[in-house]
Amino acid sequence: MLQFTNKIRVRYAETDKMGFVYYGNYATYFEVARVEFLRSMGLSYKSVEDSGIIMPVLEFGIKYFKPAYYDDELLIKTTIKEMPAMRLTFYHETFNQNDICLNKAHVTLAIVNSKTGKPCHAPNYFVDALKSNWHD
Amino acid sequence: MLQFTNKIRVRYAETDKMGFVYYGNYATYFEVARVEFLRSMGLSYKSVEDSGIIMPVLEFGIKYFKPAYYDDELLIKTTIKEMPAMRLTFYHETFNQNDICLNKAHVTLAIVNSKTGKPCHAPNYFVDALKSNWHD
Amino acid sequence: MLQFTNKIRVRYAETDKMGFVYYGNYATYFEVARVEFLRSMGLSYKSVEDSGIIMPVLEFGIKYFKPAYYDDELLIKTTIKEMPAMRLTFYHETFNQNDICLNKAHVTLAIVNSKTGKPCHAPNYFVDALKSNWHD
Amino acid sequence: MLQFTNKIRVRYAETDKMGFVYYGNYATYFEVARVEFLRSMGLSYKSVEDSGIIMPVLEFGIKYFKPAYYDDELLIKTTIKEMPAMRLTFYHETFNQNDICLNKAHVTLAIVNSKTGKPCHAPNYFVDALKSNWHD
Repeated sequence: MLQFTNKIRVRYAETDKMGFVYYGNYATYFEVARVEFLRSMGLSYKSVEDSGIIMPVLEFGIKYFKPAYYDDELLIKTTIKEMPAMRLTFYHETFNQNDICLNKAHVTLAIVNSKTGKPCHAPNYFVDALKSNWHD
Repeated sequence: MLQFTNKIRVRYAETDKMGFVYYGNYATYFEVARVEFLRSMGLSYKSVEDSGIIMPVLEFGIKYFKPAYYDDELLIKTTIKEMPAMRLTFYHETFNQNDICLNKAHVTLAIVNSKTGKPCHAPNYFVDALKSNWHD
Repeated sequence: MLQFTNKIRVRYAETDKMGFVYYGNYATYFEVARVEFLRSMGLSYKSVEDSGIIMPVLEFGIKYFKPAYYDDELLIKTTIKEMPAMRLTFYHETFNQNDICLNKAHVTLAIVNSKTGKPCHAPNYFVDALKSNWHD
Repeated sequence: MLQFTNKIRVRYAETDKMGFVYYGNYATYFEVARVEFLRSMGLSYKSVEDSGIIMPVLEFGIKYFKPAYYDDELLIKTTIKEMPAMRLTFYHETFNQNDICLNKAHVTLAIVNSKTGKPCHAPNYFVDALKSNWHD
């Protein structure tokens, strides 16, 4: 498995009139978490796209337990449990600064050749980077 | 059951560099769908909140089949399958102008007393409005 | 001059913890206003882009007088005062359902050849559509 | 005067189909810059709000010279040129990682008593924090 944690500070723009982070904004937080996770393994998602691979989202599911508030410093714990073939799933858990778990989510990405629009396998360098960081 | 459809035009701000509607923005589209659905039954979500009931999201799940593009005129079909008790689930399907199904989702809302922060039952007038529109 | 008005309903996602529409979201409302303005003259901004012209924003200025709230049905009055050469300025005023002016803004767009990245003149069909609707 | 710089990484959600950061998203970047600026002087904007002062935006103006792209690491230089009385203006300049100036902006905030909704003076502790960091 692979694990990574990153911090995200809640912006004013991301709150709503309930005073909570709007439920749709976690999708963006998790995108940041995934990109920083890949970066921590030497992978730039931007470079992946520039090389002709895009990774659109196939599935997103989230259960919300508690809200996040303005200026909270959230900790997002992200896990990859299976090596990617033609898709890749990230599991996310969001904690606030008091170590309360706010929500749990998963996001499954397709791996797609941007020219043909067809699903494809993850590039070798991508798989290798994940393998070399893999642990039990 | 209860059914409702509404149209949403994709805004430039909602697209991303892939040229697609960003995956998190459907949460907003479904919020609009729910609010217009309630309005079609004479219920104002704003008035519900003003009366001391908030309906934060407990769960959101979505499967994406095809992307939406800039300026697409999306049709969102929303269904309520069970009468609300202390929670309420909406099922959403998004179609583009070519009648292609782009994604399927569900959103479960809690019903919460905004003063106490505790779950509560849907108010009578809310339940009555749903009942009077209910059909098989 | 050319004038156009359109309505926009405030979404929950667009409010912030102050209970107001977040100040940056008017940029999106004005984008919608511009696109619908062009559509009312038979011009599709999507088609303009597909034909190789992009119109990135050069300048945006806004003065806020009063906030907009959730579920407000805003009226945006948009004016074009000068025919476009290599740029095009839109003037926007936002009113709420009580006819209170909430803000005044202007947005200046460049007209750019998307292949070369260089500024260019508005296409003839674009200028013609504006001319045929022009009035004092 | 007072000066502060902070870094912001461009998120995928913030790009649009042109491949650029959507023009309205700089409003959010500048909000983050202002809040971190205040935090660097020991001021929490969240605490300011909790103490009954809100600072809604009165005016926002921006000139765009060059676009920002996905994953760019932007540097935002923020300046306060005048001590606040009943309003406070921030001047922002955005640079990319190649030290190219992308845009220049200013944002003027009102200082408002959240209970009365009336403009008021900045609290003493707020003014003192600015004064103690002031330099020529």
